[in-house]
Amino acid sequence: MAHHAHSERIAGLSRTQKATLTTGVGFWHTAAVPDASIPSIMLTDGPHGLRKQSEGGDALGLGDSVPATCFPPAAGLGSSWNVDLIHTVGAALGTEARAEGVSVLLGPGVNIRRSPLCGRNFEYYSEDPFLAGVLGAAWVQGVQSRGVAASLKHFAANNQETDRMRIDVQADERTLREIYLPAFERIVTTARPWTVMCSYNKVRGVQVSENRWLLTEVLRDEWGFDGLVMSDWGAVNDRVRALAAGLDLTMPAAAGDDRVVAAVEAGGLDESVLDRAVGRLLTLLDRTAAPADDPAGYDAGAHHDLAAVAATESAVLLKNDGVLPLDLSDLDRVAVIGEFARTPRFQGSGSSQVVPTRVDSALDAIGDLAGEGAAVRFAPGFRFDGTADPELVAEAVALAEQSATVLLFLGLPTEFESEGFDRTGIDLPANQLALIDAVAAVNPRVAVVLSNGAVVATASWQDRAQAILEGWLLGQAGGSALADLLFGLANPSGRLTETIPLRLADTPSRLNFPGSDGVVVYGERIHVGYRWFDTLDLPVAYPFGFGLSYTTFEYSDLALAPSADGLEVSFTVTNTGDRAGAEVPQVYVRDVEASVDRPAHELKGFTKAHLAPGEARRVTVSLDGRAFAFWSVREHRWVIEAGDFEIRVGASSRDIRLARTWASPGDGIPATLTGMSTIGDWFAHPIGGPLLLAAFADAGGGDGAGFGDVDPLVMKMAAGAPLAKMASFAPGMTADRVEGLVEAVRAQSTLG
Amino acid sequence: MAHHAHSERIAGLSRTQKATLTTGVGFWHTAAVPDASIPSIMLTDGPHGLRKQSEGGDALGLGDSVPATCFPPAAGLGSSWNVDLIHTVGAALGTEARAEGVSVLLGPGVNIRRSPLCGRNFEYYSEDPFLAGVLGAAWVQGVQSRGVAASLKHFAANNQETDRMRIDVQADERTLREIYLPAFERIVTTARPWTVMCSYNKVRGVQVSENRWLLTEVLRDEWGFDGLVMSDWGAVNDRVRALAAGLDLTMPAAAGDDRVVAAVEAGGLDESVLDRAVGRLLTLLDRTAAPADDPAGYDAGAHHDLAAVAATESAVLLKNDGVLPLDLSDLDRVAVIGEFARTPRFQGSGSSQVVPTRVDSALDAIGDLAGEGAAVRFAPGFRFDGTADPELVAEAVALAEQSATVLLFLGLPTEFESEGFDRTGIDLPANQLALIDAVAAVNPRVAVVLSNGAVVATASWQDRAQAILEGWLLGQAGGSALADLLFGLANPSGRLTETIPLRLADTPSRLNFPGSDGVVVYGERIHVGYRWFDTLDLPVAYPFGFGLSYTTFEYSDLALAPSADGLEVSFTVTNTGDRAGAEVPQVYVRDVEASVDRPAHELKGFTKAHLAPGEARRVTVSLDGRAFAFWSVREHRWVIEAGDFEIRVGASSRDIRLARTWASPGDGIPATLTGMSTIGDWFAHPIGGPLLLAAFADAGGGDGAGFGDVDPLVMKMAAGAPLAKMASFAPGMTADRVEGLVEAVRAQSTLG
Repeated sequence: MAHHAHSERIAGLSRTQKATLTTGVGFWHTAAVPDASIPSIMLTDGPHGLRKQSEGGDALGLGDSVPATCFPPAAGLGSSWNVDLIHTVGAALGTEARAEGVSVLLGPGVNIRRSPLCGRNFEYYSEDPFLAGVLGAAWVQGVQSRGVAASLKHFAANNQETDRMRIDVQADERTLREIYLPAFERIVTTARPWTVMCSYNKVRGVQVSENRWLLTEVLRDEWGFDGLVMSDWGAVNDRVRALAAGLDLTMPAAAGDDRVVAAVEAGGLDESVLDRAVGRLLTLLDRTAAPADDPAGYDAGAHHDLAAVAATESAVLLKNDGVLPLDLSDLDRVAVIGEFARTPRFQGSGSSQVVPTRVDSALDAIGDLAGEGAAVRFAPGFRFDGTADPELVAEAVALAEQSATVLLFLGLPTEFESEGFDRTGIDLPANQLALIDAVAAVNPRVAVVLSNGAVVATASWQDRAQAILEGWLLGQAGGSALADLLFGLANPSGRLTETIPLRLADTPSRLNFPGSDGVVVYGERIHVGYRWFDTLDLPVAYPFGFGLSYTTFEYSDLALAPSADGLEVSFTVTNTGDRAGAEVPQVYVRDVEASVDRPAHELKGFTKAHLAPGEARRVTVSLDGRAFAFWSVREHRWVIEAGDFEIRVGASSRDIRLARTWASPGDGIPATLTGMSTIGDWFAHPIGGPLLLAAFADAGGGDGAGFGDVDPLVMKMAAGAPLAKMASFAPGMTADRVEGLVEAVRAQSTLG
Repeated sequence: MAHHAHSERIAGLSRTQKATLTTGVGFWHTAAVPDASIPSIMLTDGPHGLRKQSEGGDALGLGDSVPATCFPPAAGLGSSWNVDLIHTVGAALGTEARAEGVSVLLGPGVNIRRSPLCGRNFEYYSEDPFLAGVLGAAWVQGVQSRGVAASLKHFAANNQETDRMRIDVQADERTLREIYLPAFERIVTTARPWTVMCSYNKVRGVQVSENRWLLTEVLRDEWGFDGLVMSDWGAVNDRVRALAAGLDLTMPAAAGDDRVVAAVEAGGLDESVLDRAVGRLLTLLDRTAAPADDPAGYDAGAHHDLAAVAATESAVLLKNDGVLPLDLSDLDRVAVIGEFARTPRFQGSGSSQVVPTRVDSALDAIGDLAGEGAAVRFAPGFRFDGTADPELVAEAVALAEQSATVLLFLGLPTEFESEGFDRTGIDLPANQLALIDAVAAVNPRVAVVLSNGAVVATASWQDRAQAILEGWLLGQAGGSALADLLFGLANPSGRLTETIPLRLADTPSRLNFPGSDGVVVYGERIHVGYRWFDTLDLPVAYPFGFGLSYTTFEYSDLALAPSADGLEVSFTVTNTGDRAGAEVPQVYVRDVEASVDRPAHELKGFTKAHLAPGEARRVTVSLDGRAFAFWSVREHRWVIEAGDFEIRVGASSRDIRLARTWASPGDGIPATLTGMSTIGDWFAHPIGGPLLLAAFADAGGGDGAGFGDVDPLVMKMAAGAPLAKMASFAPGMTADRVEGLVEAVRAQSTLG
């Protein structure tokens, strides 16, 4: 690893100097050792824009940073399902960081949206780890292409804000391996982020900042991470234990350099551990060293335009009875209602909050479309503070009555979701729900436009809306993007990265969120998001992967071709309508004959295809071995079983258009049978089954035919008994004979 | 404890003799040491009737035992909610055991019905631990009143048949303490069973037969159990480890006496552990020693009559549009359809299977009611093997067409549920579902009578039935009982001990049952059964505690009076109809302001009141402290918090008739605050809150008023931060000051 090159410089540092380098200076800088020519670098939030604070600001000084482009937060950007776009946004963020002298950008956030209630969901991509991993990797590659380090966060299982600094996440290892770790794993192994940020919480009883299993065994030994691990701000309780576990940099500035030195001197902390941490910091300094030709600034206008493109691709059209797109010539018969049209909510609260370079409101943007001199008819309709205001409602209703169509801008005001606390429900505020009723009662053409960082329920009111455009949080250019989408200057192409449930009670973690008494049990295990809804076949409001367009698409000609370690999935997508548009074909894999419980299907590939009217495109999605694997508790490894898998191609998890079955050869025959394996296990094993049948025949003195005489009900009961326990019932099946069978299976199996 | 009295006798035994006494002889006997005058005693299944096998029979020799009265299995008997009745049945079972020379009866089974799929649910009482505990205690007291030992089983968390000998139950301690252990705890502490049977499975990674925490720390040290722990048949993998954990008797006969002796001689097993196990066996021999006047037999006719009474109280009337009860004078216009009427299914399959002294079929019993010479019109309608038989359907439809009313006997044939395997669905067999459709199409008065050990779904067909009588498994006299109930000679008074869901997908363990790869995660935690459905407010087919009567009841005048350690709940129940009948008023407790997540409410008391027409009775139900307590993970004890509890009295968990709020003083103020307690925790604590406010005022140099100036959103975020982490933000809040606050709280708290 690169930091081996630093051994000479490290040898020249005192223990105190080395200890100093393992924590920050102030909130936003690493320590410098001028004598050794080790400079300080700056670290800054966040995932969708720079929050570079002015000197003297502290962590709570939100809203007090230098202006920067606010791109759509992950809740929006992720809905684009556009890998290239996210790479481009990442590169723009890197450019802004470079221009501001920032070396590390604290993102991306790839935690799984376990519950719609998590207050920080707007910073995370998806309920699905494959999607979060692919999108997060593009972001990292984009940012780092500009010589700025990404900080992959929050590693790991930081899926709620409630009690986030203490909560003990009780999740079994399979759940961690299949749901909460894969996004991190994919990004580490494919995009090679230069830093990882450890999370506040505990995992399986151990504070993550002291969790050697996560920070060293999994992250470095298994995945090959070669960068620096820093703490989330304030996540370290004990710097010595954290260093020992594999944490390199405690942020922000923390006391205790003396305790680190003392631990080394007392032998409680190996000096090589301290040296290693310093070496990783030096490697980070090398990686982020400013090139000679570093630009002094960036084109804020061009970045705003990029933010508008990103926003346009991110909004999701949930429903459209034909109201949308509106015709610009009808604009004088359109009512714009809702405070969000005038005062956009375009980002979330907390550490990711950006001071934007400018902000487009939808109201202004619609006004711009209308052209000079044209007045857009507007009524705010409700107050952000949630209180009822009959006058605002009456004004809105009057406007709606006089209009052919209503654009109704609703959403979650700032106070309803934030880093730092979780929501307790998923409904829109009551005053907005009342406004829907009032407006819909007088106007039959209502298009609802939503601004919210986390899922809101639509079931109670969606019948009264003739169209719904879910805008999530769209960044500073969201208003322009929405105007373009509503009036058909752009075609919606966002897709849901999270299922919208009919009601909170249907969600998988409902009675296990946010835990209590310091513990949260991930009782739904691997069945998060659509895995839960689709496996249980529960009705939902809008499924994972769903999104409408102003045009239509057809799928055809699915073909499967084995590749070196998986499968090439090819099919044709055709734009069958008369507008240009983009489709997001999704490839789900269903394990048809698994030996363990698996979800109904899982997303393992996707693409985004921008197609002209009538255009057909042949698409190929590559599935690697992992696409078919599950984490085996028994074998403690990823296992691909032989047997049928169904490859499903669709426009959402509930809209499968093409499917074919593929017979996987599996990754080998494991020698997992023991005397404690059940009769059923034995008969199901390709080698053990025939051996046992022969042994029973022999033990019984006959030809095995005797099995046919056993009452099927008794046989069904016996199938669950371990073979070693049969001695009582089949006297010939001695311990020696069982041991001989186990040995014979081991000899003939192809895996260890 | 009693076995101390045996120390002299034990001292006279060789190590080999002692080792011999810790396992059985054959399948059904303990070992004897004639030299030391230690006799062998017999142990026999099971919970609802003796399965005393003839000499030479083995464990699989089902159906090969001496005739005995088959009382209703727990699925039926428990539905009576009649404590006195169950005590009487227990006493009758004890009498039969005495008469047959059996010293230990292997029951009751008080495992929780975690999923409707568990193949052995018919042997268990309920989804609710309080109900299972109260009913199981009555059974134990009844059996042991005859000098026969009960064997409380299967201890613990044995809630499925799939992989039952290996499955590792991953349940958090609170879930075990609140759901899976309380029935055992109540029975051990109130009914003092002389033996407990350990289960096959693992709990939290440790085989129960080797689980010292369960078998010694919880069972003996905490609950005070002073009897013998035996293994389920074949549950011991290692006799030495089992002895060390607190298991006294390995059943059936197992090899390895030599290994036990060798372990003692090598020092790996303390000889006192072996002596203790032998002492417990000697105590059991004393307790079950036959009295001089032991009767030689029993009155099989009287026991059959008791079985009929028990069956009559156990059937649950789920629906009645007025069809029931039928009038005997209309009997010639009634069609009896369904093979179950002629061939009753009255018990389950597996080790509990009894050879009955006689069997009443409903068809014969209805014939008896009709009187001599009257022919009951019958068609079997379907085949038990599940295959479609159009001729049988046609015959049934023809009969239905000619009849005023149809009694349609449906249920689960033997093959559909059994010890040894779990079900995969809860629907009636397809051929029976088809029969309902066919019969209902030609007859508008269909009363369905069900025979099934575990829940079957009713949602898809209940609209086509004008009445549903759920008979569960009613024992050998069930046929007579059903006839009496259907024709109004008896009034239904059974109540559901398990929620009937609309569909399997709604049940709390749906995606966590039966686990895979050797592990089952109890992900629904404490939210089992109605706790899940009622907390989520999910619609159900029939709620827990539900059951109709041919008369009606009113509730009135709820009064609460504090008692020494809880609350006396009094109310009046009145039979407002014109028939005698029995009501089962249920008392649920809701924790209105808990600091941890709790179910919507929990059953904490009930009674069964048999009331003449017009009769009113004042009922008092006592709630002890435990009725209000939860298991605190943080404090590792039962905690009763100060605050409001709602006391709800109802006819089911969804039919609350009376409710009052009670302000509990709690069991003291715990000194649980530390520096890692959050600001929110501190402010919520009755002592810590004011202290912290003062400290902040002081640290800020002012009067605390400064708090009011903080942005409420920032305050909401800060509430989740541990106090010790405030030093960075509130410079006066030093580590010393935090420690001082913790000390001050400790000094003023009333609990340790």
